[in-house]
Amino acid sequence: MSKSKKVSRRKVLAGAAAALGSAVFSGESGAQETTAPVDPTKVQGRLASELGQRSPHEKVQRIPYRSTRTSSHTPLQDLDGIITPSDLHFERHHGGIPEIDPEGYSLLIHGMVDKPKIYTLAELKRFPARSRIRFLECSGNGGRSYRPPEDRQREMTPQHADGLTSTSEWTGVPLANLFEEVGVHAEATWFLAEAMDAAIMTRSIPVSKAWDDAMIAYGQNGEALRPEQGYPARLFLPGFEGSSNVKWIRRIELSDRPFGSREETAKYTDPLPDGTARSFSFVMDAKSLITFPAHPVQLSEKGWWTITGIAWTGRGKIVRVDVSTDGGESWHQAELEEPVLPKCHTRFRLPWNWDGKESVIMSRATDETGYTQPSLQELMDVRGPGTRYHYNHVRAWTVRADGSVLFGIDPPA
Amino acid sequence: MSKSKKVSRRKVLAGAAAALGSAVFSGESGAQETTAPVDPTKVQGRLASELGQRSPHEKVQRIPYRSTRTSSHTPLQDLDGIITPSDLHFERHHGGIPEIDPEGYSLLIHGMVDKPKIYTLAELKRFPARSRIRFLECSGNGGRSYRPPEDRQREMTPQHADGLTSTSEWTGVPLANLFEEVGVHAEATWFLAEAMDAAIMTRSIPVSKAWDDAMIAYGQNGEALRPEQGYPARLFLPGFEGSSNVKWIRRIELSDRPFGSREETAKYTDPLPDGTARSFSFVMDAKSLITFPAHPVQLSEKGWWTITGIAWTGRGKIVRVDVSTDGGESWHQAELEEPVLPKCHTRFRLPWNWDGKESVIMSRATDETGYTQPSLQELMDVRGPGTRYHYNHVRAWTVRADGSVLFGIDPPA
Repeated sequence: MSKSKKVSRRKVLAGAAAALGSAVFSGESGAQETTAPVDPTKVQGRLASELGQRSPHEKVQRIPYRSTRTSSHTPLQDLDGIITPSDLHFERHHGGIPEIDPEGYSLLIHGMVDKPKIYTLAELKRFPARSRIRFLECSGNGGRSYRPPEDRQREMTPQHADGLTSTSEWTGVPLANLFEEVGVHAEATWFLAEAMDAAIMTRSIPVSKAWDDAMIAYGQNGEALRPEQGYPARLFLPGFEGSSNVKWIRRIELSDRPFGSREETAKYTDPLPDGTARSFSFVMDAKSLITFPAHPVQLSEKGWWTITGIAWTGRGKIVRVDVSTDGGESWHQAELEEPVLPKCHTRFRLPWNWDGKESVIMSRATDETGYTQPSLQELMDVRGPGTRYHYNHVRAWTVRADGSVLFGIDPPA
Repeated sequence: MSKSKKVSRRKVLAGAAAALGSAVFSGESGAQETTAPVDPTKVQGRLASELGQRSPHEKVQRIPYRSTRTSSHTPLQDLDGIITPSDLHFERHHGGIPEIDPEGYSLLIHGMVDKPKIYTLAELKRFPARSRIRFLECSGNGGRSYRPPEDRQREMTPQHADGLTSTSEWTGVPLANLFEEVGVHAEATWFLAEAMDAAIMTRSIPVSKAWDDAMIAYGQNGEALRPEQGYPARLFLPGFEGSSNVKWIRRIELSDRPFGSREETAKYTDPLPDGTARSFSFVMDAKSLITFPAHPVQLSEKGWWTITGIAWTGRGKIVRVDVSTDGGESWHQAELEEPVLPKCHTRFRLPWNWDGKESVIMSRATDETGYTQPSLQELMDVRGPGTRYHYNHVRAWTVRADGSVLFGIDPPA
């Protein structure tokens, strides 16, 4: 939007000038209208407010998934750094976003425990809290890119391609503290996490994750959880696939085996080439994505540009991101920006002197376990063409000679 | 707000039941109406959206300063962790918030340089970027607490008392890169930073800060700067008093001396007891604030509670926060939450077993230079009762026997 607007002399005389803040010099015919932009140093500005708003020039927003609107994607191409503003954090829900009154909220923990207990929100908040900056990614993220080059949609942005990942500072109570209080039995190896949404989303989680770093989160980026993130409380499992981080959590049941719920049998398992399926594949492996240059950007000229993007892993810290500008022939180590936090988006940057020729740019992350993000072919060899979820293969963008950028590589001639 | 609403039978028959989602059992007279809360598992929830909204149960907001509305305070008592959501970041402006079209924006750098240059926003963004999670604090923050106990307002929240500090992830170009390109002269020791707001805010800054960590920031918490934070670009000086971080920056002039602008002579200097004033007191010294328990919270019972708050320093990292629950007689080291970042809010926590008696709780921060936050008396001895700005003395809260909390300590009997 431009502040430099043309207005007729009549409107000026009618007093619109002050409102528009424009200086207008117009002939009677209007044919020689000229305008000058507002000079913000000559106009008293807007005063302080209870809640800030974005500049009207900024149109950043999520994209809900087509007609079902059961998910929405974070605009990764519009973001820098690692924090995702809460109103842009991706969504995924199976029965819509429930309206929950926090006054009536409670969490039941029962099953193989000494003392079953019901916690109100106030009781949860009275436990010593923990805040952690961590990514959350849907395990189906990037499915559109897991196709042979000839079948792939090229005009995808980072948001379209991989927008089901975001990073927030999450605050809550360590689940271990609650498990200690209720006295979880030594034989209890799994727990069911159950939501109070219309889908009654349920997942089985290993108890070991509770003793590690699971939490019942009630805070996001300082304030209360957003409704679409599980308000007033959710399970948060750093590094685990999104769907296991059960939102609007109302019940936890301890057991010595998994529960075999719909969302861990019919869905959220990974079909393999031999006809079997990999189940309980919780951890999100190392992955990275270039967010600039990326579709729909068009580079205006050859010369120096900075390739940047995000890398993350559910297994700890990212230790290295390599970037190729020649389709994987050679790789260059990118700079990782501080802070490099475990199980968190990490920003990488690499200056690139573009020669103006068509170039295929790619990024490849390595985590602290030594694991490196596989190529599409390597992943397909192991998982087969029909697999679902956990698409962490290397992504590519094609920068064409006119500076425009398309997702993926050109199909074989 | 409660979801459990009473409705008449007539309204139910008229079809309101589905909209309200309530189960209603009513006698003809309506005298025996009973209601059941909505069961969110029985109702399809709201679908995905372009921009998220807070739960209607959450009323978190800034408080604009009285009638002038030239500032607004961050609701520190409602926040946990370290990140401040951008729409809750404190504001301070001297001529209101200008409306700036980013297409017409430019930054001029001139004066004692080899090649004066004008940068468009696109040109600034083409430089390699840097993102840093850093606090920003107004140097006048906490002035209301710099009074003898008998004059002090007791019913202040953390927001009222010290809400002019916030933390964001800031993205921009290091000013050093721009200074290298224009060729700043070796004799240039100061630069003027000038805003394009109605106040034409100007401040003189030492060039050494540019070679250290100053940046021209255009990003905040991933997205574009908010209008009240300098959209589309501001000077960001990690650790320096807020007013020197000139927003809506349009001009930088290099010189071999400071410029003596209004906002560094008539204001933003610190009067001393001998009648002189301390000028160019840029760096914000170590400070801390307990955000829970704090007014208007009322502890419901004696027993275990977690004292928590934030600590920060413009001189690097916080290395230690001590908490007293007996008015400064004894101190206990609080836990510092990771990540502990330089020039950034750091969250501290300390479990406290409250015995139900009136208690004065205080926090005291130490930074990596070895400097420890002074007491009010120590600060007054050095700066005198009439000083302004840089009020980093130790704060106290009085927890009364009924669990209510007041700012400060009881006045002398």
